[in-house]
Amino acid sequence: MKVTLEKDVMENNDRAAEFNRKLFQKTGTLVINIMSSPGAGKTTILEKTVRALSGQYRISVIEGDIATERDADRIRSAGTRAVQIATEGECHLDPRMIAKVLPEIDLDETDILFIENVGNLVCPSEFDLGQTHKVVVLSTPEGNDKIPKYPLMFHVTELALINKTDLIPYVPFDLDQARKDLQAINPESRLMPVSARSGQGFDDWLNWIKEARQACLKP
Amino acid sequence: MKVTLEKDVMENNDRAAEFNRKLFQKTGTLVINIMSSPGAGKTTILEKTVRALSGQYRISVIEGDIATERDADRIRSAGTRAVQIATEGECHLDPRMIAKVLPEIDLDETDILFIENVGNLVCPSEFDLGQTHKVVVLSTPEGNDKIPKYPLMFHVTELALINKTDLIPYVPFDLDQARKDLQAINPESRLMPVSARSGQGFDDWLNWIKEARQACLKP
Repeated sequence: MKVTLEKDVMENNDRAAEFNRKLFQKTGTLVINIMSSPGAGKTTILEKTVRALSGQYRISVIEGDIATERDADRIRSAGTRAVQIATEGECHLDPRMIAKVLPEIDLDETDILFIENVGNLVCPSEFDLGQTHKVVVLSTPEGNDKIPKYPLMFHVTELALINKTDLIPYVPFDLDQARKDLQAINPESRLMPVSARSGQGFDDWLNWIKEARQACLKP
Repeated sequence: MKVTLEKDVMENNDRAAEFNRKLFQKTGTLVINIMSSPGAGKTTILEKTVRALSGQYRISVIEGDIATERDADRIRSAGTRAVQIATEGECHLDPRMIAKVLPEIDLDETDILFIENVGNLVCPSEFDLGQTHKVVVLSTPEGNDKIPKYPLMFHVTELALINKTDLIPYVPFDLDQARKDLQAINPESRLMPVSARSGQGFDDWLNWIKEARQACLKP
């Protein structure tokens, strides 16, 4: 019975993800689902990204958190529309939560929608939100062993942002080993070192977004 | 139906937790369930703890991870019995997983059993393993806002180790604000700054363990 129930839930999720995906494709909106452990720097990356790109693109953000409206407030301070989803205990966003808040976002007027998932390196990896791309952020103080230890997350994402490279002198993080481990788990994924604080590598990330947005416009 | 099913699952878990708890009480074993985000430093804290205390106490460790035997190997290198539970996708340990590996641990010969939970600041907070105490580790690079953002974890734990205090000069972490936020969520919980790397504050942690062990021996 448990299996049937879980299967039903996942089928409902798949339908909801397809519903979202079609809406996003219709409006040509690039949708990026960003996942990480708590404190890896998702919100700081988004604040900086929004500040850098809001002159060129119309951006919206969905913030997923267990509790509080803090992250949406931070994004609004950076000058962009942000909708907060408080999951009230749920450890991940699911596509129905996204569908429920889409009426608050004018997709016709949104070139890029960032979805910041709940801080969790496990559960969010199992849920398709209908996004265009999935990105994982791993911060250097967490250690490079998190790639083999949380393989599903690195398997389902297309880009691994290695954040907080400014801390590399102070923490044990082996970038070469991280590259090898990512290659073993997901040869298609790209590893990109950045520091949202110092700005190091940030242009690579902004260019990746611009190219992804361009691809959404192709017929 | 979903509610009933979840209720059944949780009742089974509660029974299993009670089963574990009675065994631990019978042998006077202190059992500490350690939880945190991925990369907050649980394993490093345990390595150092085991090295410091294994002359005085008979210690065993259960390591919970999604995948790999890495952490158990690290603990074994530190000179202690370690059993790895690979949850194969499950985002937390549950008390039945613990019961299943207890035959591999000689509780009669174990003064202190550390259980390192899966790296996840959300799901493990919901599961009673039958432990004597629950401890959460929050590392300074994660930011002090994680306390209000993941309130259940800080509500169910009795001790919050603030790890990686050696990084405070390089990261934005407000210890006073962390104290206030913890007080608001759980006035009974104690905040303890430590650095597993530099050793700063580590004696407080070792003393806390010794007192907790002493309390297990009282009739």
